[in-house]
Amino acid sequence: MPAELRLNAFTMNTVGHLAPGLWTHPRDRSRDHGRLAHWAALARTLERGLFDAIFLADVMGVYDVLGGGPDAALRNAVQLPIHDPLQLIPAMALVTRHLGFGVTGSVSYEHPYPFARRISTLDHLTEGRLAWNVVTSYLDSGARAVGLPRLAGHDDRYDYAEDYLDVCYKLWEGSWDDDAVVADPAAAIFADPGRVRPVRHQGPHFTVDGIHLSEPSPQRTPVIFQAGASSRGRRFAGRHAEAVFVSAPTAAIVKGYVDAIRADAVAAGRRADDVQIYSMHTVILGDSDAEAARKHADYRRHVRSEGALALLSGWTGLDLGRYRPDQPLRHVKTNAGQSAVEAFSSADPARQWTIAELAEWTSIGARGPVTVGSPATVADALEEWAQATGVDGFNLGAVVIPETFEDAATLLVPELQRRGRFKTGYRPGTLRDKLFGAGPRLPDRHPAIGAGASVRAAAG
Amino acid sequence: MPAELRLNAFTMNTVGHLAPGLWTHPRDRSRDHGRLAHWAALARTLERGLFDAIFLADVMGVYDVLGGGPDAALRNAVQLPIHDPLQLIPAMALVTRHLGFGVTGSVSYEHPYPFARRISTLDHLTEGRLAWNVVTSYLDSGARAVGLPRLAGHDDRYDYAEDYLDVCYKLWEGSWDDDAVVADPAAAIFADPGRVRPVRHQGPHFTVDGIHLSEPSPQRTPVIFQAGASSRGRRFAGRHAEAVFVSAPTAAIVKGYVDAIRADAVAAGRRADDVQIYSMHTVILGDSDAEAARKHADYRRHVRSEGALALLSGWTGLDLGRYRPDQPLRHVKTNAGQSAVEAFSSADPARQWTIAELAEWTSIGARGPVTVGSPATVADALEEWAQATGVDGFNLGAVVIPETFEDAATLLVPELQRRGRFKTGYRPGTLRDKLFGAGPRLPDRHPAIGAGASVRAAAG
Repeated sequence: MPAELRLNAFTMNTVGHLAPGLWTHPRDRSRDHGRLAHWAALARTLERGLFDAIFLADVMGVYDVLGGGPDAALRNAVQLPIHDPLQLIPAMALVTRHLGFGVTGSVSYEHPYPFARRISTLDHLTEGRLAWNVVTSYLDSGARAVGLPRLAGHDDRYDYAEDYLDVCYKLWEGSWDDDAVVADPAAAIFADPGRVRPVRHQGPHFTVDGIHLSEPSPQRTPVIFQAGASSRGRRFAGRHAEAVFVSAPTAAIVKGYVDAIRADAVAAGRRADDVQIYSMHTVILGDSDAEAARKHADYRRHVRSEGALALLSGWTGLDLGRYRPDQPLRHVKTNAGQSAVEAFSSADPARQWTIAELAEWTSIGARGPVTVGSPATVADALEEWAQATGVDGFNLGAVVIPETFEDAATLLVPELQRRGRFKTGYRPGTLRDKLFGAGPRLPDRHPAIGAGASVRAAAG
Repeated sequence: MPAELRLNAFTMNTVGHLAPGLWTHPRDRSRDHGRLAHWAALARTLERGLFDAIFLADVMGVYDVLGGGPDAALRNAVQLPIHDPLQLIPAMALVTRHLGFGVTGSVSYEHPYPFARRISTLDHLTEGRLAWNVVTSYLDSGARAVGLPRLAGHDDRYDYAEDYLDVCYKLWEGSWDDDAVVADPAAAIFADPGRVRPVRHQGPHFTVDGIHLSEPSPQRTPVIFQAGASSRGRRFAGRHAEAVFVSAPTAAIVKGYVDAIRADAVAAGRRADDVQIYSMHTVILGDSDAEAARKHADYRRHVRSEGALALLSGWTGLDLGRYRPDQPLRHVKTNAGQSAVEAFSSADPARQWTIAELAEWTSIGARGPVTVGSPATVADALEEWAQATGVDGFNLGAVVIPETFEDAATLLVPELQRRGRFKTGYRPGTLRDKLFGAGPRLPDRHPAIGAGASVRAAAG
């Protein structure tokens, strides 16, 4: 177990991220997601709480599996409207100095050449505090929206992502040398053309011929986040990811993920601790256990099961509205939904969950555990969970925004600090420096470095 | 001539936008373009000067026509590195209340469905201060970079842009009704699904099937900027643009553009004053004419003609390095370069310009006029120019950043205000309110409104 636990804040540029109905709570400010001041204030709160990063989820599409349309998602604000996460970051970066920013970006909607420029721009503007959560997209609605008949198959999407990353790595790591920018006013030389070279890439999906349009940013390649739980997703994470976000209802399942991810990293020629693993957790805090329980009960009055079913149906690809609410889960069997349903029901294998119970249970905490209590109670639970699973820290989901994160910064972090289980200040440097303490750049054993070297070798 | 002249600031997320070599000036801060604080300070300066907007140019590609490669552009920082302009806006918006933001976005590199979401997000975050400068991209290098053999033909690119805009208009104007978002916590209804409908678009270039992912932003469609000078570009502007940016060395040429653009707008069923026209101008200011002249002479010592030739060669598609520096321009004749060369030489039709003189002349002021003098001298020149051309205002290019813009805010604006030719405060509301005073949304006679209506009609 690591001496210090890490915290990351999980949210989205939307009204209802993971707690359907909670936007109706009188203290919830999710509806302000379109206002910069809302995000600037949240960033300051998280930096006060010494969070590693704010992780901005994203989907390009709507949750339209329940009922075969977007109506339930619209009524319940289930990740809809869903705005671009990237543009929140410059405003949050302006008012903070250390907080990291993990932005979800799909490989499915933009050519990697302009995308690589976007990311380099942001790594410059944040002074090296950027992470990219690589996703392949999982909603059919997003594919249809851009004129494709349906999503590519799951494993094909990861092959596509491999080619996409290879292009990005070459642009970020191989096109400009560290000393390419001379910036000598007396000689009137900005960059030395001999130290800049084009990327000429002919991959199975992408062709590129051009120099990267950005000079090297502090981290070059941003910190790579990954959150997929499939075996193909885990293999991808083992090869590429520096932080992996896992979510499951029991410590036993999470421990399985952690062991597999670290083994996959080693199999890919990396070290087991080249990957920081954060486990999804929802904490509801009060000064005492009783106050936290009252808060939890208050929150629960705002849960809306239709929203939960829309979310669950989107995740599983299974229209849960077709079943009776009291139908036990074991009887629901489809290829698309099976593994997700198994994961849910494994929370308590002895228990026969009904659809209604599942909706109720996931409405606060999504697929992860929920701990309700005083700072001491919650800190005990997190320590125990980390001990049992081997995770490096926790990805905290929100119930009421920004209250959940304010409570964590104000109540939980000081308690963890008293126990010597939380840092009392940020390390200097980029996000990668803060996470690994070994400089702003990726180590040589990461595939991005080899991709960069191949560009230099091809240029002779 | 309008009672009040308008000012717009023209810049780019790069080191050397239009004044090659000036990055070497000791007071120039262009190299800070990767830092948010630089842009936040510039935005505050422009808002103090009551500028309408900051116009962020962009290119996706490099100026590699001179010498057949990027070496000259790299050495002289000619629009290279060139970072994403979009991400500067959230930080500038956080520290201002009125300044508008015009962002250049090409129709060539991203599907309109995710692009429309990006723009709506930004119109929300800026509270309706966004403009989009629609470009079709003019550098072959950008096409090659994303795996295309070369750019599409010029007119074909505008047809492509028409289809792209049609998709965007449908998403912005037709998918969500104004009253779609109910946001009633008591009823737990966020949006009324009956007032949200998918865009089903089958165009010559794009297919879309999905609802817009953003709820209506303050302006819905951002203010549409256009800056193309070809006759096809002008026709496009007449149909779509709300602000057009023109650039030519003489008032006579600009007047021809202005008349043609207004006629094209009327021909497209719009009003002549539905389009605000800004003329490119560079002003070098001092407390006296003599001080301004000294400043100009000081700036000129930092000009680098290799950089100017790289810029000119990129604009004309003609490698000007192949000619002797003393070669007169009239002898240079190619299809690609002819019109541009004619425009340059028309600055003084009696004069025989050489390549070297052209490079020297364009290094400060690009293709537009340069006025050097006291606030009174410069104000006289701008008034005279507006009188002669019928433009609504000026797009000020920078020589030394941020000094050129600080001088304009501090010296020029108060002089124009004393003459009653400049506003003393911003109008309330969105950028469109500020520019036209007729509400935040486009008038019915703009094609975006018809596109929106077609979505509602198709949904029945």
